[in-house]
Amino acid sequence: MQDIGVYKEAIDRALAEQNLPNSPERLYAPIDYILSLGGKRLRPVLTLMSCDCFQGAYHKAIPAALAVELFHNFSLIHDDIMDQAPLRRGHQTVHHKWDLNTGILSGDALLILAYRYFESYPPEVFSALSKLFSQTAIEVCEGQQYDIDFEQLQEVSKDQYLKMINYKTAVLVGAAMKMGAIVAQVDQTQQDLIYEFGRSLGVAFQLQDDYLDAFGDPKVFGKQVGGDIISGKKTYLYISALEKANAPQRTSLLTLYGDEAIQIEEKVSQVKALFEATGATQAIVEAIKGHTQHAFFQLEQADLSEQAKAHLADFGHGLMKRNF
Amino acid sequence: MQDIGVYKEAIDRALAEQNLPNSPERLYAPIDYILSLGGKRLRPVLTLMSCDCFQGAYHKAIPAALAVELFHNFSLIHDDIMDQAPLRRGHQTVHHKWDLNTGILSGDALLILAYRYFESYPPEVFSALSKLFSQTAIEVCEGQQYDIDFEQLQEVSKDQYLKMINYKTAVLVGAAMKMGAIVAQVDQTQQDLIYEFGRSLGVAFQLQDDYLDAFGDPKVFGKQVGGDIISGKKTYLYISALEKANAPQRTSLLTLYGDEAIQIEEKVSQVKALFEATGATQAIVEAIKGHTQHAFFQLEQADLSEQAKAHLADFGHGLMKRNF
Repeated sequence: MQDIGVYKEAIDRALAEQNLPNSPERLYAPIDYILSLGGKRLRPVLTLMSCDCFQGAYHKAIPAALAVELFHNFSLIHDDIMDQAPLRRGHQTVHHKWDLNTGILSGDALLILAYRYFESYPPEVFSALSKLFSQTAIEVCEGQQYDIDFEQLQEVSKDQYLKMINYKTAVLVGAAMKMGAIVAQVDQTQQDLIYEFGRSLGVAFQLQDDYLDAFGDPKVFGKQVGGDIISGKKTYLYISALEKANAPQRTSLLTLYGDEAIQIEEKVSQVKALFEATGATQAIVEAIKGHTQHAFFQLEQADLSEQAKAHLADFGHGLMKRNF
Repeated sequence: MQDIGVYKEAIDRALAEQNLPNSPERLYAPIDYILSLGGKRLRPVLTLMSCDCFQGAYHKAIPAALAVELFHNFSLIHDDIMDQAPLRRGHQTVHHKWDLNTGILSGDALLILAYRYFESYPPEVFSALSKLFSQTAIEVCEGQQYDIDFEQLQEVSKDQYLKMINYKTAVLVGAAMKMGAIVAQVDQTQQDLIYEFGRSLGVAFQLQDDYLDAFGDPKVFGKQVGGDIISGKKTYLYISALEKANAPQRTSLLTLYGDEAIQIEEKVSQVKALFEATGATQAIVEAIKGHTQHAFFQLEQADLSEQAKAHLADFGHGLMKRNF
């Protein structure tokens, strides 16, 4: 088993060596640009780690890992257009640095290039990877659409919200790990267990993000505390609070969320008090715990060496402690 | 061998029966919408025809044909955004009927759904179809980028222009036919011959489009004659004329193309006179003939029954006579 740093280095090196065409320059330069912005390479690292844990040679999973990373960057480019985001990882987004058309077209090309990375595998593996990839990719699109839809909806249910974060982010974490298992050529049961481990951790991580946005230590979390409250986002905390609120609490929460005039610190602090009072805080803490436990339960059942289980568990705990 | 109408009906029926999910509605409704706008279904018909001609059961090629049609519609949605086009086949474009984000995301989903149509084939066929598809898709993106780039360039060479139309439109015609051959499981040589037949016809058709835009009968061609000249498009005729022009002809052509004040009929008629005088008209007529002959030469070499060759030749002639 390798250290996470070894996997990341292998990914970074493979990305640097992938030898994209030079022409047309305006199609490939934005692809080079976004891939060189770095990031933690979390998803492709998981593909290599999973392959390694299932006793596959991790370097054999590099093409599949690159497909996952390219897909992730495709979705970043197109999502940044949809969100009108000027910055990504502290740098200009592609459509800001170039223009809208460049963002659309280079994103499209990234998605296609991602598929091409499966071509180095024999037909059976190619077909299994490509099917999983397409299934996941369409779910990510659906998740993005639900996320957009929710902005316009008056109320979103917990189930709808969980489905959205599951599709928008968690399934890709599960798929990244399952691809490692496919390359290692373990059986369907093992593939499904590791998928479910990754997917559940992804959900837990995303819920924890909602929690930390309101209750995290700003020095550790690295974002403005209360950002979701300020932007009126319908998070798990907000949805739970509305579900659990009595009539006056409900009125207060709806009024506060819709109030544009109120001072920001005041708004954040009052909403947080309602999250506590309604039991939403407790509900999200329990949900995070539940999804994390579900993840580790999958891991326990998997046919992995104790060393591999410990390796994956370490990673899971590190992720939830935001040490990764 | 079936009549073209039979293939088209099979495609239309399969599209109507494809059973897309209902939710999220805003992701799938635009896909339903663009696919229901109809059109000639030229590319998927070619997939079925090619499979049939190679003695495959044409209905086996339906999933591959649908992949081609979905890809084509993906590219229409994204190209219409890039071209800021309000109308497509006489109806609102997706980004006009909905909005930009819907156009981007439903286009992305269409591209992924296209890939999924290969999943019904056994791994070897799946892998061959998917590789050809990705190769073609990335070329189409490159072609679109070259087309965008050419608007900003002072001068484009004939070779650059031919590469652009080849990538932007012809390779998909070739790929559509090659997919039929792959499904019919004929050997690589036959696959390559039918690809080259389709690709060359695609180039010839596109060059003929340039020719007819200037010299076609408006009643037959169905578009405003001189549209390319009016919009200042760097077509094969324009590029050839610049290459062949003497100094005064060159100055006249550049001045006319850049002249916004001149009366439109006057501009079209003077530019057409220069196309004739420089020999550009003759050059394009010869180029169309050359690419068409190259196409039919491939067909001659292919290991097809005389009946199948006649069927494909009929189609090729019909296409170039715009009877299809």
